[in-house]
Amino acid sequence: MLGQLLGPDIQELIEQRDFRALRASLADWPPPEIADLIESLPSEKDVIVFRLLPRDLATEVFEFLDYEKQARLIEALAKEQSRLVRLLNELSPDDRTALLEELPGEVSKRLLSLLAPEERRVALALLGYPEESVGRLMTPDYVAVYPTWTVQQALDHIRLFGKDSETLNVIYVVNESGHLLDDLRIREILLADPQGPVADLMDNRFVALKATDDQEAAVPIFRNYGRIALPVTDTRGVLIGIVTVDDVLEVAEEEATEDFHKIGGTEALDEPYIRTPLGKLVQKRAKWLVVLFIGELLTASAMGYFEAEIARAVVLVLFVPLIISSGGNSGSQAATLVIRALAVRELGLHDWWRVMRREVFSGLALGAILGGLGVARVLAWEQMFGLYGEHSLGIALTVGLALLGVVMWGTIIGSMLPFIMQRLGADPATSSAPFVATLVDVFGVLIYFSLAALILRGSLL
Amino acid sequence: MLGQLLGPDIQELIEQRDFRALRASLADWPPPEIADLIESLPSEKDVIVFRLLPRDLATEVFEFLDYEKQARLIEALAKEQSRLVRLLNELSPDDRTALLEELPGEVSKRLLSLLAPEERRVALALLGYPEESVGRLMTPDYVAVYPTWTVQQALDHIRLFGKDSETLNVIYVVNESGHLLDDLRIREILLADPQGPVADLMDNRFVALKATDDQEAAVPIFRNYGRIALPVTDTRGVLIGIVTVDDVLEVAEEEATEDFHKIGGTEALDEPYIRTPLGKLVQKRAKWLVVLFIGELLTASAMGYFEAEIARAVVLVLFVPLIISSGGNSGSQAATLVIRALAVRELGLHDWWRVMRREVFSGLALGAILGGLGVARVLAWEQMFGLYGEHSLGIALTVGLALLGVVMWGTIIGSMLPFIMQRLGADPATSSAPFVATLVDVFGVLIYFSLAALILRGSLL
Repeated sequence: MLGQLLGPDIQELIEQRDFRALRASLADWPPPEIADLIESLPSEKDVIVFRLLPRDLATEVFEFLDYEKQARLIEALAKEQSRLVRLLNELSPDDRTALLEELPGEVSKRLLSLLAPEERRVALALLGYPEESVGRLMTPDYVAVYPTWTVQQALDHIRLFGKDSETLNVIYVVNESGHLLDDLRIREILLADPQGPVADLMDNRFVALKATDDQEAAVPIFRNYGRIALPVTDTRGVLIGIVTVDDVLEVAEEEATEDFHKIGGTEALDEPYIRTPLGKLVQKRAKWLVVLFIGELLTASAMGYFEAEIARAVVLVLFVPLIISSGGNSGSQAATLVIRALAVRELGLHDWWRVMRREVFSGLALGAILGGLGVARVLAWEQMFGLYGEHSLGIALTVGLALLGVVMWGTIIGSMLPFIMQRLGADPATSSAPFVATLVDVFGVLIYFSLAALILRGSLL
Repeated sequence: MLGQLLGPDIQELIEQRDFRALRASLADWPPPEIADLIESLPSEKDVIVFRLLPRDLATEVFEFLDYEKQARLIEALAKEQSRLVRLLNELSPDDRTALLEELPGEVSKRLLSLLAPEERRVALALLGYPEESVGRLMTPDYVAVYPTWTVQQALDHIRLFGKDSETLNVIYVVNESGHLLDDLRIREILLADPQGPVADLMDNRFVALKATDDQEAAVPIFRNYGRIALPVTDTRGVLIGIVTVDDVLEVAEEEATEDFHKIGGTEALDEPYIRTPLGKLVQKRAKWLVVLFIGELLTASAMGYFEAEIARAVVLVLFVPLIISSGGNSGSQAATLVIRALAVRELGLHDWWRVMRREVFSGLALGAILGGLGVARVLAWEQMFGLYGEHSLGIALTVGLALLGVVMWGTIIGSMLPFIMQRLGADPATSSAPFVATLVDVFGVLIYFSLAALILRGSLL
């Protein structure tokens, strides 16, 4: 047979770890032949070949294996896991991706239910779900029934298999191919006529997560539906597990912590602060501090450009920190508000224009308030100490207008930068408070001294 | 009887809403007399008098009422709720606190189970649990059994009353006075000998929340124990409800959002960003911007102090934004890391010294890196453009040392301020990035120019 004929070549390709060639050569084989081949390979290698099959093919091949062969493969997948893990560590990332395509739902489900909870974390990686995906949080401890069963049959099944279920509040209904059809509250089942079919209780409305969904995306769904557990399906809708909200709580907390670190201008720490080794802590912080420092160097150049004006009117320089930090502060406010709203899915990319309008108005109002205070400060000190002499009005006007401009600029930059980050596929939280402040500082210096040159030319300058 | 004799006076005090006098005059009565008095009052007023009793007295009085009277009072508490709410709105905060002491666990429990879920939110306020306390999240939908029951009795009870329970995974064991003794997994009950007593399954180890606990404190407990629901007891240990993790998830998200807003230098918004009216948004942001502006005014004064030096060496001023913002950035990093670690209870107040040691080292390392970059910048520009002439070494040294000092100062201030806030009973997140940056700016100016005066005296200055 073809399988036996080509066996040695295949073995060779496996030895050489040439998974791409292997995958390509298998793609055109008829599924029954591949099934035979898998049977003929030693237990370590059959798993690798099965893992290499494109998903559609894997489903077909799996169906061609008889029940005992299927069970042996699943067991092999579970048993060979430590060997596979070692293998995986030696692979390049794209080879690894080729090897770890999402397994068919049937296979995932059986593999999961075979494993002890402590082995499950490793297995979920093997099942091909990307890191930080819903698939990594799944447990197989749920109860599913068929719509053709009577309520009594469903109850008997629950009594028999419900013991290990993470929650008995919700029972899932699937068809023979394992597709999720509905979720039923245990209450509905308990109160129904025991002789009627399960199908009578169904409304075919349910909320489910996809195993490949981002974990972060699960948080608002749990929040909005107030559920303790949600079913997880593979990309075809086959029920393969459930995710309970306690795991999602942990995810939400970790995501928030990462965002906090980023907003504070640190690369996100992978471990808790106090357990992060000092060297790593310094490294993660130094990276951003250096980037910001280099950005901030531009302020020195910007001010250098106005050195002549500064030499003529040193008094102007006294207000530089006040003006640029007001811009930075209003920028961090806007950035943090928008970053958080994006993170909890309260805002989406399409809302950028609504936010822009709000922030232009807010920036105008806040800038007017601070500008007014700035004018008051200059005039009051002039009144009390006579510091600025005949130029006091011009200085007051320059400081006031610069504050207005800088605060508006900070607000707009701060609110739009997170949208731009998200649009570019980066984490919006990367547009941290210090990052925004640095951007605003440079422009703040330019705005201030340009205004000064304009307003005070011929008098102080 | 005393109750009937004093009835009219009491009625008068109620009419006058003089709750403090009423509470004081009731405090010395014997419990049976108060029970009689409550019986004699019209249904609206008996509730008020009962609510006014100090907690210990309320427990005793409640026990003196016979079952029907108790039921009537509970019903009245539930029914009169809308009237009570109206009354509450008219009261001053301290009168309200006097009226709303925590009810005895027995009363809370019965009241809760009487109410529809939509009425429960209001009722929980009436039960005297402070806002943001665990008590406000409770539901009465749990199943409790007695240790003296057989496992079979427990199972029958579960079958009968478990329908409405939020979760059947965990069954609670209480004694006759309602004190929580243990929690049992449904699995343990199902696998046990049906004729044995429940007591045989108990290990008396359980995790419970107090109704008066802060909701935020519940989050790490759910996280650490990975539970779907936790029992809630009153201050004496009487089981009065459960809290499910989906509600806590919402709390965790809201608390994180508040912290984000504060760290960004905005007063926490009560509503989502996009639904906050513009006027309110501006007001919440203006408050902190103005505070920071006033703080930042000190930089102008600090620089004014060095005006003579600046006039002689304008070149020094070019590095001011660079130096103060480096301090601000390292300060926001440290502040955000510590604020988040405090919020997720990874750090406590007692850890301040450990954090201090880490941050002194981090500050030193980060300061050395930025200081080195600063020196390199000055010397490189001198090499390329000959900007600083014979003083370039002195300027480089001044800039480098100032950066070292400012970054260290920022790191220490940023990491310690959250501890100080927490120690003072304020929210650590109040020591926001902009707040730390402002504090550091003022000192940054002083450090920089003092160093300049020291190093460059006699040469450039």
